[in-house]
Amino acid sequence: MRIGLIGLGKMGGNMRERLRERGVEVTGYDRDASVSDVASLADLVAALPESPKVVWVMVPAGAPTRATVEELAELLSPGDIVIEGGNSRWTDDIAHAALLAEKGVGYLDCGVSGGVWGRQNGYALMVGGAAELVESARPVFDALRPDGDAGFVHAGQVGAGHFSKMVHNGIEYAMMQAYAEGYELLEKTELVEDVPAVLDSWREGTVVRSWLLDLLVKALDEHPGLTDIRGYAEDSGEGRWTVEAAIEHAVPTPAIAASLFARFSSRQDESPAMQAIAAMRQQFGGHAVQQSTPD
Amino acid sequence: MRIGLIGLGKMGGNMRERLRERGVEVTGYDRDASVSDVASLADLVAALPESPKVVWVMVPAGAPTRATVEELAELLSPGDIVIEGGNSRWTDDIAHAALLAEKGVGYLDCGVSGGVWGRQNGYALMVGGAAELVESARPVFDALRPDGDAGFVHAGQVGAGHFSKMVHNGIEYAMMQAYAEGYELLEKTELVEDVPAVLDSWREGTVVRSWLLDLLVKALDEHPGLTDIRGYAEDSGEGRWTVEAAIEHAVPTPAIAASLFARFSSRQDESPAMQAIAAMRQQFGGHAVQQSTPD
Repeated sequence: MRIGLIGLGKMGGNMRERLRERGVEVTGYDRDASVSDVASLADLVAALPESPKVVWVMVPAGAPTRATVEELAELLSPGDIVIEGGNSRWTDDIAHAALLAEKGVGYLDCGVSGGVWGRQNGYALMVGGAAELVESARPVFDALRPDGDAGFVHAGQVGAGHFSKMVHNGIEYAMMQAYAEGYELLEKTELVEDVPAVLDSWREGTVVRSWLLDLLVKALDEHPGLTDIRGYAEDSGEGRWTVEAAIEHAVPTPAIAASLFARFSSRQDESPAMQAIAAMRQQFGGHAVQQSTPD
Repeated sequence: MRIGLIGLGKMGGNMRERLRERGVEVTGYDRDASVSDVASLADLVAALPESPKVVWVMVPAGAPTRATVEELAELLSPGDIVIEGGNSRWTDDIAHAALLAEKGVGYLDCGVSGGVWGRQNGYALMVGGAAELVESARPVFDALRPDGDAGFVHAGQVGAGHFSKMVHNGIEYAMMQAYAEGYELLEKTELVEDVPAVLDSWREGTVVRSWLLDLLVKALDEHPGLTDIRGYAEDSGEGRWTVEAAIEHAVPTPAIAASLFARFSSRQDESPAMQAIAAMRQQFGGHAVQQSTPD
């Protein structure tokens, strides 16, 4: 089987390697000609064997993915299949599928987890779309997923794959926050003499053992005291969408929301909210305020 | 080596079995004569070989542990060692150690993780106290801990063991809350057709894979839809102590605090706070209130 793969960045590049290692031929396209196998999307589509052509899209969510899907709608033929493996919002999938359906082109959305470890360990895949399309693309999924029974699910209709991946990431935010808060508490109280040794000891026999804990132990080994790492955390969008979905469906998600907001706080040089708190304390109680240094 | 083990409940009973299977002789005492090896604490102490006698205390935290330590202070001799393996607050350890030190009896506190799975997988142990006492009791720790490098840490002086275990449990609260919120969101939106299948797929290749996730998948398999389980969660005390320690040391722990408060909410038949919200909305906006049914 040969597929087209659009987007050969950190994720797409590694996925091309894993696919090739596992017997799926790949024609890759990227705007960066130094990593691309072909010069254009048209060349990529032309390089694929006849129907159904299968094209995997692995470009940034939002406008770049939308533009790629629109271009593919012009290039592909009825019966072909687009698999959208980026970090798209599930609501975008509904729009992408409708746009391609006008041309008779099938659409699957696929949430992909595994990050830089995926090439070696396999990528966990959460797929949304029609069952017969999932079967057509099965060899691709089988090559990417981890060995064993887990690591793949056909979660439901279009959007269900990215929705599952989004919730996965929301959970990830709160798990990371849980370990991070525990780490800070252990360090701050100074009762425990070797905090990394405690975290390391938790890797067997405890309730909190996990792959994320393994990574935290590794990070503390490579960055003692984390002294060279600033406490500044970006968010990829999926945490926001999780909380937005929770709001839309009135599902209480206090831990996930708190974790998302902690990331927002981490990126502020100054907190207008806490300036307001300090100012109000001064007003009603005469409490001293610290002077800020205007730029 | 022979040790005394006080408290043969769910945890202590299983620990006695694991110790015996791994070559540590155990004389066990429990108020329940049907499981006890001896009739009294005095008989237990008399059954142990001469110094240092090692006694492991595994009874409920608070008054029962305090009473046991006080009785042991009368029965033991200088050089003997008490290991307190229950779920005590680390501040109690300081008091216990001081009380026993008056009699020349050594004290180690040991946080124990592993629950009902510990007998088979081993118990993760976090120990506080003097290094020479830890060495004296090493064969006991080695028999209880999991195989491999992890699962044991000498965390620091008296209290550091239970403090580490307490933070472990605080992290556990927020991890459980993270999975629980994600589960509810997946179920409530109804986009995903088979939620347990999605959670099961996450067990390989994802960032959220963990032993807790394995247990959630197992629970959903045994209790489809969780329809036979009420959303009522107790807390063991360690979550509260974690948040209290965070307050004492001014460490922000929003996710752990939110998880603890979610458990409090789960145990309310009616929420006075939300009654107050409903009443205020009625006052300023004429919003309808739902009538409660007085008992």
